Amino acid sequence: MTVAINDKPASPPDANPPDVSRLIDELTTLCGPTQVQVGGAIEPRFLQPARYGAGQAAVMVRPGSVEEAAAVLAVVARHGGRVVLQGAHTGLVRAATPTDGEREVLLSTDRLRQVFELDLLDRTLRVSAGFRLSEINERLAEHGLWFPVDLSADPSIGGMLAHNTGGTRMLRYGDVRANTLALQVALAEPAGQVLRWGQGLQKDNSALAVGQLFIGSSGSLGLITEATLKLSPLPRQRAVALVAPASLDAVFPVYQAVMQRWGVLVSAFEGLSRAALEAGLHGQDPARWFGGDLPDYAMLIELSSELPAEQLDLRGLLQGWLEEAFESGQVSDAVLDADEAIWGLRHHISEGLRAQGKVIGLDLSLPRRHFMRFRERGLAWLAAHFPELRLADFGHLGDGGMHFNMVWPSSAGPLDPAQELTLRQGLYALVAELGGSISAEHGVGPQLQAAYRAHWGAVAPAVLDWSGRLQTVFDPHKRLGNTDWGA
Amino acid sequence: MTVAINDKPASPPDANPPDVSRLIDELTTLCGPTQVQVGGAIEPRFLQPARYGAGQAAVMVRPGSVEEAAAVLAVVARHGGRVVLQGAHTGLVRAATPTDGEREVLLSTDRLRQVFELDLLDRTLRVSAGFRLSEINERLAEHGLWFPVDLSADPSIGGMLAHNTGGTRMLRYGDVRANTLALQVALAEPAGQVLRWGQGLQKDNSALAVGQLFIGSSGSLGLITEATLKLSPLPRQRAVALVAPASLDAVFPVYQAVMQRWGVLVSAFEGLSRAALEAGLHGQDPARWFGGDLPDYAMLIELSSELPAEQLDLRGLLQGWLEEAFESGQVSDAVLDADEAIWGLRHHISEGLRAQGKVIGLDLSLPRRHFMRFRERGLAWLAAHFPELRLADFGHLGDGGMHFNMVWPSSAGPLDPAQELTLRQGLYALVAELGGSISAEHGVGPQLQAAYRAHWGAVAPAVLDWSGRLQTVFDPHKRLGNTDWGA
Repeated sequence: MTVAINDKPASPPDANPPDVSRLIDELTTLCGPTQVQVGGAIEPRFLQPARYGAGQAAVMVRPGSVEEAAAVLAVVARHGGRVVLQGAHTGLVRAATPTDGEREVLLSTDRLRQVFELDLLDRTLRVSAGFRLSEINERLAEHGLWFPVDLSADPSIGGMLAHNTGGTRMLRYGDVRANTLALQVALAEPAGQVLRWGQGLQKDNSALAVGQLFIGSSGSLGLITEATLKLSPLPRQRAVALVAPASLDAVFPVYQAVMQRWGVLVSAFEGLSRAALEAGLHGQDPARWFGGDLPDYAMLIELSSELPAEQLDLRGLLQGWLEEAFESGQVSDAVLDADEAIWGLRHHISEGLRAQGKVIGLDLSLPRRHFMRFRERGLAWLAAHFPELRLADFGHLGDGGMHFNMVWPSSAGPLDPAQELTLRQGLYALVAELGGSISAEHGVGPQLQAAYRAHWGAVAPAVLDWSGRLQTVFDPHKRLGNTDWGA
Repeated sequence: MTVAINDKPASPPDANPPDVSRLIDELTTLCGPTQVQVGGAIEPRFLQPARYGAGQAAVMVRPGSVEEAAAVLAVVARHGGRVVLQGAHTGLVRAATPTDGEREVLLSTDRLRQVFELDLLDRTLRVSAGFRLSEINERLAEHGLWFPVDLSADPSIGGMLAHNTGGTRMLRYGDVRANTLALQVALAEPAGQVLRWGQGLQKDNSALAVGQLFIGSSGSLGLITEATLKLSPLPRQRAVALVAPASLDAVFPVYQAVMQRWGVLVSAFEGLSRAALEAGLHGQDPARWFGGDLPDYAMLIELSSELPAEQLDLRGLLQGWLEEAFESGQVSDAVLDADEAIWGLRHHISEGLRAQGKVIGLDLSLPRRHFMRFRERGLAWLAAHFPELRLADFGHLGDGGMHFNMVWPSSAGPLDPAQELTLRQGLYALVAELGGSISAEHGVGPQLQAAYRAHWGAVAPAVLDWSGRLQTVFDPHKRLGNTDWGA
């Protein structure tokens, strides 16, 4: 299968450009002068994403309530322009980064913090979109609870919903969608209408799944202002091993054996290439790990349980299995009893890679049977076409997720955009051929706009038609976000 | 809050009635004469639902492939009429029961059985809509796997998707939605277009959640012809207790203690009223249970694990906790070591109730904090307004689900429809007041059409507007199903 990347621009410019000075005046009246920043005076953190270059906007506004946020949408409907939504600006697909200094209003949700209602009996949290994951889990910990979508970054809950993030514990707890019970959304049309979908119940099939559409929509169908989340009891123990397989061929047999043996006790199963391990070490002495002789590939396996160790010895289970796997020749080495250090290494990979050069990160998932084949063929393709690039892949192997991250070394000079396009086209074509996803958990956004069209255009064009139609239902004038879901 | 039941009919009749003889001719040509039944010659099982009276249809057709099924939709688009979709006809909201002998084509999916593709490494099953849950789990058992949405009935997988069933193990495994990775859907417009949504990956955020809309749509937005399901390892052990709380006030403290203690090991937490227990006994000697002295309320608690009992003694955990709970006065009695008998009792309740008279079943869910309050106020309301009715409630207490089932004794003569309407209105108003759902897991369908409008009209009218708009996008000529989602 060949996949052509269609490079057509995200949206045609409006017939009527916005009246920016009226916009600024009304937004200032609405939210107060300290919550509005204009053009070049916008603070860099609102314009600079974690990866890639900075964006620009005509004006940035930080509404302080749901009512103000909805009114911002109404103001933009009256005076023209587009609204780009931003949570903590930690996303990796530019969905929250504005690109048009003439037309775009950047709406930051960081002041949407009015609601934090914990129901201990239902184990639910009704929470405003502006709270960050770390804050939420800090507050929940004292009650022995957490929101179990675990990430290296620290996004806002609104951003997590807009991108349906998965993270390292998805294998056991599911993604954001699986842990969301209700939403409140401010709509583009009728501008500023607030839709409440769901009542926060664990189980409710008394309505169509309208709210599901907003989850994972990259902030394009509506502004999520609040959600009711399903919480989980915090585990009382974890046991973690970093395991070197005897060979790459042993990785999935190990995975299968582990899942069949322990099932729901397995809370993470990550894969890390040698280059990713090195990046994760990030200045640490490698001698601490596998005696300094890093393996070509490693698996991070975590078991966790609400039971205390006296009732269930997870570390003992892990060690017993490792001994068997070593005996049988599936495993060549392992690190145990270093739980925090192992997770520290895992969470430092991205930072470590950034220090090496420009990171081109592909957030893929693949059917497990094609996971290693993709890796092998991707490596061969890179060697033939981009020998300068160093692959440092890692990710959530247990659910088929692979961060196929490559580093373009600083020493090779800048990577020109046409080359990056060729690179992505080549690898995405291979993803499509092997039945994979071009965006496992980061969403689409402008960064993947062209690849999205090319992928689904080749795999299932009706998906583009219907997605475009639904976007038109919710946002007929294309005022919201910077992702086009249509063909 | 008062909720008025709006009794407007589901749909206006078509301007042009269908040309039934042309329909029959073309359906016969398409699917063969043995797969088409006309009017009074339609076999009763296709017309008679599990509860309530029989329906009628102009013609019944059983397409033998996705292509035939899609072509049936195209034939109806050409010649007029409506299509009502039916799986195993086990649903409880009449969504699969046709009602119009002049206009309706009943499409049975029971011959959609072409695909059964098991991927052991991904633990997924791609399966045609016509397979039944029992068959699927029988075939999966030899691989140590199952589709963990566990029900008393034996529906087709297509019907389970159309109603997003939950069942007794939802607490641990989630509902059908949480276990679905891809869908194939034949659409009403363009008539017979087949939409493939998703690639069967565990993790994929490269598209809008279009497919989510079909799950739980009561067969109104499209005909689900195939799905890719997420499977789970079969537990290696279960331990079950039927526990009598010291009083109703102890039920939720016990629930909370059990969840905080065992978390994900808890695979079921059901509640059963004394009347439900009696119905479940169904001719058995009650002396076997609690020495014959049945409690007013009981909790069915199940632990399960992929670990064998040598590694984790679930029965021991359960017994140890029961001893503590007995000591502390939360629990007054319990039945252990009768796992199959306990589940047998639980699954016989519905049948037992049917033997006592006409069952009026309300499939509710409530915030846990209001669960017992609803029960108490509902009982008081019944005593005042319908003293003949006997409440025999039971259900999935752990996720807030309550089958508020009432029996109108055969001795009281027939229950007239106006009385049943008054009954439902009174109880649904109480559900709305306490923030509950009028349909936890059975869906909407004609049976709940009026109650759906009344509930959301009072709670969040925008839900009706947007649902109606989405239904119009997928089925602008109202050709599919018998549920109207609009205001």
